[in-house]
Amino acid sequence: MKILLCNRAERPGSAWQRELQAALPAVPIDPWQPGMAAEYDWALVWNPPQQLFDEQPQLKVAFNLGAGVDKLLSLRLPPALQVLRLQDAGMAVQMAEYVCHALIDFFRQLGVYRAQQRQGLWQPHAARERRAYPVGILGLGVLGTRVARAVQAFDFPVLGWSRTPRAVAGVRCFAGAGELDAFLAASRVLVCLLPLTATTRGLVDRARLRCLQPGGCLINIARGDLVVEDDLRAVLDDGHLAAAVLDVMAEEPLPAGHWLWSHPKVTLTPHISAMTLRREAVAQIAQAVQTGLRGEALPGLVDRARGY
Amino acid sequence: MKILLCNRAERPGSAWQRELQAALPAVPIDPWQPGMAAEYDWALVWNPPQQLFDEQPQLKVAFNLGAGVDKLLSLRLPPALQVLRLQDAGMAVQMAEYVCHALIDFFRQLGVYRAQQRQGLWQPHAARERRAYPVGILGLGVLGTRVARAVQAFDFPVLGWSRTPRAVAGVRCFAGAGELDAFLAASRVLVCLLPLTATTRGLVDRARLRCLQPGGCLINIARGDLVVEDDLRAVLDDGHLAAAVLDVMAEEPLPAGHWLWSHPKVTLTPHISAMTLRREAVAQIAQAVQTGLRGEALPGLVDRARGY
Ligand SMILES: NC(=O)c1ccc[n+]([C@@H]2O[C@H](COP(=O)([O-])OP(=O)(O)OC[C@H]3O[C@@H](n4cnc5c(N)ncnc54)[C@H](OP(=O)(O)O)[C@@H]3O)[C@@H](O)[C@H]2O)c1
Ligand SMILES: NC(=O)c1ccc[n+]([C@@H]2O[C@H](COP(=O)([O-])OP(=O)(O)OC[C@H]3O[C@@H](n4cnc5c(N)ncnc54)[C@H](OP(=O)(O)O)[C@@H]3O)[C@@H](O)[C@H]2O)c1
Repeated sequence: MKILLCNRAERPGSAWQRELQAALPAVPIDPWQPGMAAEYDWALVWNPPQQLFDEQPQLKVAFNLGAGVDKLLSLRLPPALQVLRLQDAGMAVQMAEYVCHALIDFFRQLGVYRAQQRQGLWQPHAARERRAYPVGILGLGVLGTRVARAVQAFDFPVLGWSRTPRAVAGVRCFAGAGELDAFLAASRVLVCLLPLTATTRGLVDRARLRCLQPGGCLINIARGDLVVEDDLRAVLDDGHLAAAVLDVMAEEPLPAGHWLWSHPKVTLTPHISAMTLRREAVAQIAQAVQTGLRGEALPGLVDRARGY
Repeated sequence: MKILLCNRAERPGSAWQRELQAALPAVPIDPWQPGMAAEYDWALVWNPPQQLFDEQPQLKVAFNLGAGVDKLLSLRLPPALQVLRLQDAGMAVQMAEYVCHALIDFFRQLGVYRAQQRQGLWQPHAARERRAYPVGILGLGVLGTRVARAVQAFDFPVLGWSRTPRAVAGVRCFAGAGELDAFLAASRVLVCLLPLTATTRGLVDRARLRCLQPGGCLINIARGDLVVEDDLRAVLDDGHLAAAVLDVMAEEPLPAGHWLWSHPKVTLTPHISAMTLRREAVAQIAQAVQTGLRGEALPGLVDRARGY
């Protein structure tokens, strides 16, 4: 067994390579570079170039160093390649933090209080009724279920939507395209934690945003292309939606001068809602490799046809 | 049994009076005004004037329409008066929200990201290690324990300090003056949820703030006078403390031009971290009154000598 490491942000001799090698001392782990011999079994990748797969058609497994595989699956991959992805590995709690912060900031009007502080204005506002702020979560996977649990801890009504029927304690669950409108109509805050696939691209469009209860908030921490940004702008501007908190955008980094930078109802962050944590990721990768060496079923296997 | 209602913010015929009367149809509930006959048994009060107690020395119970009784106990009260206070009644979840928001805002550097958005700057920052941000909670009462549970849900180490020894699942508990320094030295974020008493006034001073791990954050949602504000300023200015989030101040409303309004490390809100919710409060009061009518032990009884 030989492993390639291709993590665009890192150079050879990096902390990733050192720690992976320490966790898997018996397996050679080489940083990828163009023109290497086609003798590797696994590749550990984040945003790899097409060239890697063109030169290494014998690869058996590509392990994606993040949860979302949309970019990886958009490449031409060897037909039999098994794609694994990072599952949770410290990302779920970060997502729970990010979403709860955005939700509380919106529900408790803390942005209004920050503005009042800048003006030197002491002005309490009436408490809102939390039962009037049901939180709908698009995607009840590894991250969506963790976020649902965190939001429930603050006594908000929680709803969830998935492709196949799911049962999550305390969450009103909806499944499939046929139940999407009912799910949206019962939500005021919409949290997007879907994978980006052929089916989900552009799912959050004007008609779907209009289905939400008025005066709500969109929180997108999954992928920018799930949301039609011009449609988002329309429902923000006509007042149907009160706020949007976006960690992901169609184009990243967001171009200078883009309307999202300065829209008064938009809060944005540079794709930091759930960062890959090296220690947790290295442990999960080492475990997957050892599972593979024992010939057992691999964890975190992606269904390439389904797209996630 | 006859009840007086003295809620300074409200007028006769108010929603409070209507809803209390609906919950206790057999008991006359009259809004207080100066010069009433000394024939009332209970008073439901928020910031009542001294005159009320001077004119109604026969009162048996004063029910405080908030959790903190420091102002009420500073009045000359009939010696045998029993003081009850609102317990939770929807305030605990609000405190949990407020503290988790402040904690996540600080830990995840979301203020930095808000500033970057205003500048049009796309710049991720490295993830921090949550184990290096232990959260110490001063006060493990009704509110402190609920806040501890909420903070634990985000996997932070949680510590607590109380007067008498307490056991709270997953919380490293300290008790009494003798263990305060050890508690502080093991905390980086300090959440203040103590009642204001003769013993706790000015407890959070320069020496105690210096005991905290450097680069931390103070979150005060209890009473302003627990903190020596000039000492807070000193540890913010010398860099030992990175941030303070204050919902309460020594003087409220905070005077115009006060340094807290504009200090770059201070976030403040106008005493809104846990607002009294009328529906929940009315239900709790009605239950206490009925308990009293049955001659049973009253819930939420304050130890007047102890001060909380
Ligand atoms: N911003 C960031 O920093 C960041 C970090 C990590 C991850 N992410 C994003 O978060 C996404 C979710 O991650 P995860 O680990 O939770 O994924 P996951 O475990 O695969 O869960 C995906 C969920 O989406 C549902 N889903 C997929 N297609 C659907 C469709 N067409 N209709 C309805 N539901 C559908 C799935 O339904 P079933 O349950 O029926 O399969 C499942 O509940 C990732 O794909 C990634 O893009 C972003
Ligand atoms: N900002 C707002 O909007 C707002 C709203 C509601 C309440 N508050 C404030 O929050 C405070 C706490 O409320 P609560 O309902 O949680 O009170 P509580 O149930 O009475 O709990 C008080 C806690 O503080 C501890 N304590 C008291 N004196 C102490 C001392 N000298 N040394 C160490 N620990 C001491 C108590 O210890 P023991 O467990 O040993 O008794 C107890 O754990 C209230 O008093 C009020 O001032 C503020």
